[in-house]
Amino acid sequence: MKLSSFTKDGRASWGLVTENGIVDLGKRGLAPTLRDFLAQGDLAPAAALADSKADYAFDDVTHAPVIPNPDKIICVGLNYHDHIQETGREETPNPVLFARYAGSQIGHGQPLIKPLESDQFDYEGELAVVIGKEGRRIPEAEALNYVAGYACYNDGSIRDWQKHTHQFMPGKTFAGTGAFGPWLVTADEIPDPSKLHLQTRLNGEIVQDTELTLLIASVPRLIAYCSTILPLLPGDVIVSGTPGGVGARRNPPLWLRDGDVSEVEISNIGTLSNKVKAEA
Amino acid sequence: MKLSSFTKDGRASWGLVTENGIVDLGKRGLAPTLRDFLAQGDLAPAAALADSKADYAFDDVTHAPVIPNPDKIICVGLNYHDHIQETGREETPNPVLFARYAGSQIGHGQPLIKPLESDQFDYEGELAVVIGKEGRRIPEAEALNYVAGYACYNDGSIRDWQKHTHQFMPGKTFAGTGAFGPWLVTADEIPDPSKLHLQTRLNGEIVQDTELTLLIASVPRLIAYCSTILPLLPGDVIVSGTPGGVGARRNPPLWLRDGDVSEVEISNIGTLSNKVKAEA
Repeated sequence: MKLSSFTKDGRASWGLVTENGIVDLGKRGLAPTLRDFLAQGDLAPAAALADSKADYAFDDVTHAPVIPNPDKIICVGLNYHDHIQETGREETPNPVLFARYAGSQIGHGQPLIKPLESDQFDYEGELAVVIGKEGRRIPEAEALNYVAGYACYNDGSIRDWQKHTHQFMPGKTFAGTGAFGPWLVTADEIPDPSKLHLQTRLNGEIVQDTELTLLIASVPRLIAYCSTILPLLPGDVIVSGTPGGVGARRNPPLWLRDGDVSEVEISNIGTLSNKVKAEA
Repeated sequence: MKLSSFTKDGRASWGLVTENGIVDLGKRGLAPTLRDFLAQGDLAPAAALADSKADYAFDDVTHAPVIPNPDKIICVGLNYHDHIQETGREETPNPVLFARYAGSQIGHGQPLIKPLESDQFDYEGELAVVIGKEGRRIPEAEALNYVAGYACYNDGSIRDWQKHTHQFMPGKTFAGTGAFGPWLVTADEIPDPSKLHLQTRLNGEIVQDTELTLLIASVPRLIAYCSTILPLLPGDVIVSGTPGGVGARRNPPLWLRDGDVSEVEISNIGTLSNKVKAEA
């Protein structure tokens, strides 16, 4: 099942993405937001409406981030060997975590914003894990039971601001830099996220390509580690890290410019596509 | 004017703190939360009720974090020279920023939680700045106009988890480690936050003592820098950094233990007091 958030005629809603279009589940009163629906802990009321007539064509809504209002977005850095290698950093025994704020997110098809303050705007294709059930100190062996589903994430990074100090966060949470979509694929369709394949493309050219089995801290390990720190809640997002091939580490560097199209495709999920818009 | 958030008989509310106790403004319908009230942009409806009969004694409620549900908590590291010196780090031209999640916060009088996973629980007394008005790319000269008020913050830190990697966040957002209170003092009463004086005490002994004029990145500079990254919203919290004297840098180190009382007092604001409780 594919679930997404969107606005239609100025009204924020969410719904089911079917082959014929979007079934608006907010309008049908299942829950005010997708996050609220996940918190109800039962996907059956959405599944029961899977054969409904679609309300809108997929392209007739403004797509929002899959979860526009998560309590937490936890980003993971340096979680693939090839990316650690290109950065010249050392592998750490524990995951590298930093935050992104919800206000920095955009949906599928919305512009990725290159801010006035920088010309060093970079893509990062990643698998996003959306939590479905509250938990603290979740054992790795049970962790996948806490996942609502998966989506694509483009963790757009302002590299010079990321390097203003040793803490990455400023470069990782500029307005309009975190693309999250095109929808959530529920976990029943992806029993093992390590079997997925991720590809990032820039204007159609492949710039990142990895198997998710190459994650250093696996999805269960990330859930266990993060939930040791504080409770994970329904709708929380763990953005699991990017593989080698980022623009900043190329020679010459490859920066996102106005009009570029950046795509993240993950097998069994779909393709998140966003056009870059430079602030004038 | 002092404003605070609390729960009373299981109901979350907020109100005015007066000499005679708390006037419940949530119950009077001014706004559902203090954050919502700040977003209305006008403190007059609260001020007009300042002479009302108090509904509860100050000690008869369970104090919540001043803003229990901020959109963002932006923490600042290494923002006093004496703290930079004790850590052996270098001063950076830009502020060191990292995040804390709202779920890690507690109110005045609530237990600071030493987690099972660590014996390296440390205090950090800080000035919290609460935003009152939305803004992006706010000029320094106008920044104080965007402040709703100020409070005390104890940015409790799990030092070994803070050092798991080069990114501080895991050690800075454990459940029950961020004390925020006892109330918000509105900005009209504190025209210049650099004139404040902060003291942290552990079991009555002074462990940190500073003038706020010693902040490397001033409150206006922090607002300008943070709002360049993404819009600041009413209720957002900037936790401005801790001075020298942290427990981790003493010889021998001074760690928070079960039953300890950690206090942060700021002139013109008041005293935030919390007892440490070790998870069993």
